[in-house]
Amino acid sequence: MTSFMRTTTTFVSGARTLPGEYYCAPEVLAEETETLFRERWLWVARAERVAKPGDYFLYEKFGESIIVLRDKSGTLRAFYNVCRHRGTRMCEAASGHFSGSIQCPYHAWTYSTDGRLIGAPHMQDAEGFDKSDYPLHAAPVQEWEGFIFVSLSDDPVPFADAFAPVLDRLARFNLDRLVTVERREYDVKANWKLILQNYNECLHCPTIHPELSRVLPYQSGANDLHEGEQLGGYMEITQPNQSATSDGLACGVPIGTLDADEQRRAFYYTFFPNMMLSVHPDYVNYYSVWPVDAQRSIVVTEWLQHPDSVGTETWSPKGAIEFWDTVNRQDWHICELSQLGVASRVYRPGPFSPLESIPAAWDRAYLAAMGR
Amino acid sequence: MTSFMRTTTTFVSGARTLPGEYYCAPEVLAEETETLFRERWLWVARAERVAKPGDYFLYEKFGESIIVLRDKSGTLRAFYNVCRHRGTRMCEAASGHFSGSIQCPYHAWTYSTDGRLIGAPHMQDAEGFDKSDYPLHAAPVQEWEGFIFVSLSDDPVPFADAFAPVLDRLARFNLDRLVTVERREYDVKANWKLILQNYNECLHCPTIHPELSRVLPYQSGANDLHEGEQLGGYMEITQPNQSATSDGLACGVPIGTLDADEQRRAFYYTFFPNMMLSVHPDYVNYYSVWPVDAQRSIVVTEWLQHPDSVGTETWSPKGAIEFWDTVNRQDWHICELSQLGVASRVYRPGPFSPLESIPAAWDRAYLAAMGR
Amino acid sequence: MTSFMRTTTTFVSGARTLPGEYYCAPEVLAEETETLFRERWLWVARAERVAKPGDYFLYEKFGESIIVLRDKSGTLRAFYNVCRHRGTRMCEAASGHFSGSIQCPYHAWTYSTDGRLIGAPHMQDAEGFDKSDYPLHAAPVQEWEGFIFVSLSDDPVPFADAFAPVLDRLARFNLDRLVTVERREYDVKANWKLILQNYNECLHCPTIHPELSRVLPYQSGANDLHEGEQLGGYMEITQPNQSATSDGLACGVPIGTLDADEQRRAFYYTFFPNMMLSVHPDYVNYYSVWPVDAQRSIVVTEWLQHPDSVGTETWSPKGAIEFWDTVNRQDWHICELSQLGVASRVYRPGPFSPLESIPAAWDRAYLAAMGR
Repeated sequence: MTSFMRTTTTFVSGARTLPGEYYCAPEVLAEETETLFRERWLWVARAERVAKPGDYFLYEKFGESIIVLRDKSGTLRAFYNVCRHRGTRMCEAASGHFSGSIQCPYHAWTYSTDGRLIGAPHMQDAEGFDKSDYPLHAAPVQEWEGFIFVSLSDDPVPFADAFAPVLDRLARFNLDRLVTVERREYDVKANWKLILQNYNECLHCPTIHPELSRVLPYQSGANDLHEGEQLGGYMEITQPNQSATSDGLACGVPIGTLDADEQRRAFYYTFFPNMMLSVHPDYVNYYSVWPVDAQRSIVVTEWLQHPDSVGTETWSPKGAIEFWDTVNRQDWHICELSQLGVASRVYRPGPFSPLESIPAAWDRAYLAAMGR
Repeated sequence: MTSFMRTTTTFVSGARTLPGEYYCAPEVLAEETETLFRERWLWVARAERVAKPGDYFLYEKFGESIIVLRDKSGTLRAFYNVCRHRGTRMCEAASGHFSGSIQCPYHAWTYSTDGRLIGAPHMQDAEGFDKSDYPLHAAPVQEWEGFIFVSLSDDPVPFADAFAPVLDRLARFNLDRLVTVERREYDVKANWKLILQNYNECLHCPTIHPELSRVLPYQSGANDLHEGEQLGGYMEITQPNQSATSDGLACGVPIGTLDADEQRRAFYYTFFPNMMLSVHPDYVNYYSVWPVDAQRSIVVTEWLQHPDSVGTETWSPKGAIEFWDTVNRQDWHICELSQLGVASRVYRPGPFSPLESIPAAWDRAYLAAMGR
Repeated sequence: MTSFMRTTTTFVSGARTLPGEYYCAPEVLAEETETLFRERWLWVARAERVAKPGDYFLYEKFGESIIVLRDKSGTLRAFYNVCRHRGTRMCEAASGHFSGSIQCPYHAWTYSTDGRLIGAPHMQDAEGFDKSDYPLHAAPVQEWEGFIFVSLSDDPVPFADAFAPVLDRLARFNLDRLVTVERREYDVKANWKLILQNYNECLHCPTIHPELSRVLPYQSGANDLHEGEQLGGYMEITQPNQSATSDGLACGVPIGTLDADEQRRAFYYTFFPNMMLSVHPDYVNYYSVWPVDAQRSIVVTEWLQHPDSVGTETWSPKGAIEFWDTVNRQDWHICELSQLGVASRVYRPGPFSPLESIPAAWDRAYLAAMGR
């Protein structure tokens, strides 16, 4: 962590918030959907959801339904949930298990778990028909640190390039072996970017988050990722608190292989475009933010713990869940007030302070990704 | 029936399903509304709804409200429900009876049942005002086989031309004297065309319709209308079933004047654009399909029987209603799955099999009607 | 009142209702929003709502939230509810009291009640930042006859010019000292202009309003404002009725300083674009009409009385409220039927009678204001 630098050293003087149309215009969201959400690698689930061959779940966003499955040979795969005959959606259940093949319920076209068409009743009488011309349409899929990412692009940037700054950086947290202990969803009447920007600064913590401010002072810590598509750093947990929980006590065994200094820190990163990762000594909570429309978003969040913390009498994630549920709701509310305000005709980009260097950097990454 | 030919003889090799925009794009529905739904003759009700002079009902579709009535002299008429003074909608009740005249509730302009303006308070003081300049706006209306059809076009193709292939073809079924015994409406989250296409083939019956398949084998029968705006044919009822009912027994007296062979058949026709007619030995069930938006439709269906079957202790339409309510719901569900799938960006037109020659012909009629 | 002239003398021969798109097209409403609603002086509240320094209420229309307040020195002010930092909406409560300053809840930027930025944490470290560059954005605000008007334009026509025809004309009614005794809101599925046009004529009263017609004969009275943006006149209250109340009796002390003739009259005025003022001997009821979309409006109405009528055992506004609640609902219903009718493709502008000279004049004022 010797590369950590104080936030203020990277403050870009004169940085201002984005113009109002970025938060309100359906046209901007349409462009973001094409340029970002249908193009980038997006988190879709933890890998534990498809543990065994034949397991699948549906990833349903941006007008698509994707079957993410582990095929018979154990390979992770993703297919569009669209029959090649007349386009029917084949799987309805949000998750399940294929015993050998995938069959369309309409006219019984049948596919292997690696996507090949293996049955098509009465099509043998159609001149020139060849089953090998009609495999399921595959989507790029990648597993990293126990997270599954999918892209809706046929040809996305290689995952290793997109995540290069953090690819090996988080190894000490052992994220790949954590297990999910809670999932919550929030409906927030705010543009998705306001939620990312809010996550990226703690200048608002003294007014918005009394509970959080007692554990994590807003001027503590430092950032180690100041520019680019992965941003963030750490904050210091004030003693005698052990973690960010409702009673200040640890709620599980340490998740990572950390030295004493790091064991008293909380790490906060955003992975462009829409993932936020919070690593605490004894648990992880992470978020993905999904636009519903330009002025409304769904936030999905899960809490992870070391497997040794799960199903014991000693440990319970309750204190971490309660703590962040409170803080999350405080954040969503102020994001909703921001949304209402930036929708005004008189709103003009306002000045960022030095303590808002990370949201300013996030805005730069966003504008670059949008080709502005 | 000597003109019946096997479906396979008319299979057009290489036929494929329509591109996705035809099922999803509001622009296509807007064009269909102009080109088809506001232009064509559409079924609106059975003639028994306006049995007596003065009887009326409202036909309310595509932004219009039409008063369909039988005038004082017994002539069937249709008028736009729009006062010529300030445009007020005059009739609110979905059906009723006019005792002599139609009066606007706003400023009391009054019309005869044949549409002439006969009263307009204080208008005599407006220079140049002449009541004969302000009759109600009439809509073309036609009765055929007991069905009432209305067009929202000022100048539609003559009804006899539009329905030429079937004008006299159904006479043996005595449709004009049947009476309505049940009406149901279904809300289907699918484009209207998917519902028509689904009706036009039984290749899906083995997987979707176990009850139907027991009575009507999907490869039985033949089509007699293979190309054009009226399409369809018959299927054979498997013995010992007498009809397509939940117990396989006839639920009424024979509706038509049929020979022994025809008495064991069920006839299925579509009348472009949005009517589907099912004729069974002892009852008729027919459907009209109405777009709500590009991805949602309302299906209105009624069951008809011979008057001798109605109000007796011997006969009840219950078995026919239950049977088709089950089959209908199976169809709507698979249409909804089709809608979800064809909305995907990766959906591409897929190949029709020889057993899907009638939906392929329907698509050709549709594209021709749309000027494609 | 010697300038009063009979309506019929100003009837413009050949006047017709507006084309259908004016009542149905979202594009027309978008243009009206820019040209009329965001430009003109609009009623927002009675001045009694901000009686003391620090009192405020929110005026929230047309995508804006405006803080209307009486500042520390007693001056009436209006500010956009938008923090100059990151645009956050600052006040959430619909009304309240500021004790000295207005603080943004997000990062604690703080403003004086006259709009100056007086606190901005950590901004002192941002190069070139000067608090005086970031006052709240002010909106033009005006008080007249106890009514508060606000404009969303930065540079509206001076209020005294816009309201010149009525500026001193209503002095005898002592409107500025009346107090609000009731407020109601109605949701009407009709274009806002249909509601204004309906208010402007009583030709519909015999068919629509049996209760009103007994008290105020539709051909009684005269108009004194026949052309322009303020229109209207009076009707005669039929004896032995004292006022337009459910029992015909006065429900309060006289509001104005009127001679015996005027004490038996009811006055009805529209103030372009969206205010309607009804002055009765013993109470006032007034309305503002707010478009929700092209085919739907919210009507806000309040009843006012002389302060001597309020809180007494002798007087109660109940009879006036009940009377107009009944009449209002009759009006909204016929406006909704009008809306349905003018949405038809076959609707064409119809002819106005001489008794509809004021709606015809209103339409002319509207078209002029829209630059047609």
